[in-house]
Amino acid sequence: MKYDVAVIGGGPGGYVAAIRAGKLGLKTVLFEKDQLGGTCLNRGCIPTKALLKSAHLYWEAGHAKEYGIHAAMEPFDFSQAMHRKDEIVSQLRIGVKGLLRNSGVEVVHREAKLIDAHRIEADGTIWETENVILASGSKAVLPKGISDTAMTSDDFWSLAELPNSVVIVGGGVIGVEFAEMLSGAGCKVTILELAERLVAAADPDISEILFDLLEKKGVEIHLQARVTDCLPGEVRFETKEGASSLKCDSVLVSVGRAPYLSTESLEKLGIRCDRGKIRVNERMETSLPHVYAIGDLVAGPMLAHKASAEGLAAVQSIAGGNQMMRYDRIPQCIYTQPEAAWVGMSAQEAEQCEQADIFTYPIGHNGKSMADGEKTGFIRLISNRDTGEILGAQLVCSHASDMIGEILAAMQAEACIEDLADLISPHPTLCEGIMEAAAGICGRGIHTI
Amino acid sequence: MKYDVAVIGGGPGGYVAAIRAGKLGLKTVLFEKDQLGGTCLNRGCIPTKALLKSAHLYWEAGHAKEYGIHAAMEPFDFSQAMHRKDEIVSQLRIGVKGLLRNSGVEVVHREAKLIDAHRIEADGTIWETENVILASGSKAVLPKGISDTAMTSDDFWSLAELPNSVVIVGGGVIGVEFAEMLSGAGCKVTILELAERLVAAADPDISEILFDLLEKKGVEIHLQARVTDCLPGEVRFETKEGASSLKCDSVLVSVGRAPYLSTESLEKLGIRCDRGKIRVNERMETSLPHVYAIGDLVAGPMLAHKASAEGLAAVQSIAGGNQMMRYDRIPQCIYTQPEAAWVGMSAQEAEQCEQADIFTYPIGHNGKSMADGEKTGFIRLISNRDTGEILGAQLVCSHASDMIGEILAAMQAEACIEDLADLISPHPTLCEGIMEAAAGICGRGIHTI
Repeated sequence: MKYDVAVIGGGPGGYVAAIRAGKLGLKTVLFEKDQLGGTCLNRGCIPTKALLKSAHLYWEAGHAKEYGIHAAMEPFDFSQAMHRKDEIVSQLRIGVKGLLRNSGVEVVHREAKLIDAHRIEADGTIWETENVILASGSKAVLPKGISDTAMTSDDFWSLAELPNSVVIVGGGVIGVEFAEMLSGAGCKVTILELAERLVAAADPDISEILFDLLEKKGVEIHLQARVTDCLPGEVRFETKEGASSLKCDSVLVSVGRAPYLSTESLEKLGIRCDRGKIRVNERMETSLPHVYAIGDLVAGPMLAHKASAEGLAAVQSIAGGNQMMRYDRIPQCIYTQPEAAWVGMSAQEAEQCEQADIFTYPIGHNGKSMADGEKTGFIRLISNRDTGEILGAQLVCSHASDMIGEILAAMQAEACIEDLADLISPHPTLCEGIMEAAAGICGRGIHTI
Repeated sequence: MKYDVAVIGGGPGGYVAAIRAGKLGLKTVLFEKDQLGGTCLNRGCIPTKALLKSAHLYWEAGHAKEYGIHAAMEPFDFSQAMHRKDEIVSQLRIGVKGLLRNSGVEVVHREAKLIDAHRIEADGTIWETENVILASGSKAVLPKGISDTAMTSDDFWSLAELPNSVVIVGGGVIGVEFAEMLSGAGCKVTILELAERLVAAADPDISEILFDLLEKKGVEIHLQARVTDCLPGEVRFETKEGASSLKCDSVLVSVGRAPYLSTESLEKLGIRCDRGKIRVNERMETSLPHVYAIGDLVAGPMLAHKASAEGLAAVQSIAGGNQMMRYDRIPQCIYTQPEAAWVGMSAQEAEQCEQADIFTYPIGHNGKSMADGEKTGFIRLISNRDTGEILGAQLVCSHASDMIGEILAAMQAEACIEDLADLISPHPTLCEGIMEAAAGICGRGIHTI
């Protein structure tokens, strides 16, 4: 029996590709050695958001006198919050399973090995296929020199109790979200970050806001801090000020993720790799015909929605279509309070670009923000002065991750900045800030000077 | 001294028009007999949202065991919540004042009377102007037969204490928001609604969700209920089941608002009225040349952003431009938990329209919704089958009022439904639901069957 498409890896890249392939009538098999949903559903996006919701609510409820709310808070019930998280993850996993079945996709719960472009081996059985999509994802990196007692964001979920104190090594997106979650729930958190600022992938003013909000929640942050030793219960590190050491219950390492692959084996099959990742063209084709690669295995940000989009693009290629990935339209988000989200050209890039118009609307001026008690943040748009094309945006405000949808829709529709200025936003809303920022660029802002 | 533009009324219609006129270099005067910001800022949109934030947080904090949060709640501190509200309103009022000053608008704090198309009288002084924009807004209606002891949503703000029990007469948008706010804060609330369902302006399934969420907060709701007598401390009413009566601390009447105008005086000046409102064309011109009317004085939904947009359109007409109002693109929102927001063609209309494609994505299937604990709600899109034009949308989910921005941007950019299906939404977000609903219409949904 020969398949049209075999997908290796059931994360948000692989399972989405498999569903689309199945729905298109392609005979599809999906290999997953662990659980459907991959890192995103089981150890990443979803569990963190579930726990962040608990932690945010706990923090808000305990700090709401200003709102007229006086509550005597018991300690954060970590095991209940984790139980709730488990329920959500399990429900979503059942959902993914149902969607795959409904799309006619065969799911094989075994580790799969690529033999050549048309054969996969799993548990001694050979599966023949016309096309292969590699989507095995990534795993958290635990650098040498860091003790085995440290945990990664993948390991965190097996904790039975909330530690009293955690040192987080790495202040990127994952580190920052964990820091906010843990500190919000009442844990003493310290971040050690090697770079000059948190989340170096974001614009500097976003990093600054993140720094401030974490400090406000009691997080201790050391920048340009290099870990020299990581022992059980102790982390030693160096900063400009010299050597230092921290006692803690747990160490969480979030310094990055590595693709789950062997470049050596792949190269032997004729699949070219580049800097530890698989090389693909814009149709997601590898150098071996009929073999595609997506998600964390290929270049670009390690994001679930980027993987899903690449999965769809790969299936489109297989089905004979031509859906080019638009890497300049992939949003990135941080789910802190306030959230941050951005897409396309950064403010730093815009400053170097003569054609770029830029306008920043401070969210503290917005009526809905004030009603909601949000004081910090901004909505910034960047557009092309000559054509009005929307080049980028950075948002720091509550539910920025959803609000960026407005920018994404405008970019996808090839709208110009005037469109965002001219639409009628409901009042009072945060999205009025998008309208105001656009109007600001067009020289006709109302609530800006 | 002659002005280019005189605006009567400093609400969100009038002050926005004045700012735009001022920024365009038109010599502008704004008359406001009360406080800048009008009903919206002082007694409507903003104060309700500030108090809703408090009430939502109070309710959430007290019902968060599922999230791992155990809190002993003291009674809701109404005076602190009102104090916070006052601060926000006052800060925003200062903001509006500053914006007007900055735009070179002269503000006259007196009641203004239109003498003719070019003259306004205020406190015995005559002001000459080239153009007039009428923007005096509306006031809450207190129908005959309702005792003077009842309050309207305009009067609510002078309450010193949270009543123990309130009967709300009228279950429209205002009634529903007050019901949720008051019940969330611990007040016993009953709604008496004349129609067959709450918020008749919305689609029936939105009304149903609102009904359920209010019931869950302990609100008693009587539909098809006609108030027969409203005495201090008691409301008598009739339903199909017969006559009934309710004891309560306060009665809040929210049966509608009436334009703040005298049709008789206006008609005498040559300004034609129609069903109690001023007739205007799509340039906001009344039948008297050089006199424009906007906001609650003219037909259409009584919404701040509709008034602002009409104000901008009026100024555009005065300045020689031609900015047509697009009434099919004015969103409406309800700020309950979850929120509801809609724009354009309703589901009821779509069912009667052969060209309409419709898809409803249940928000309970969404990963972010589940993480956030939102189970009820949906995202529904309506588009033209032949052209792909986006005709309407209804959203019931948290921050729907902001999420509808994505639909508004798409409509403004004349995007087609494929654009919303093809964009890359960040994961996990609620706005993935918009992408899914659009993909559903296009026959290529991933997380839908």
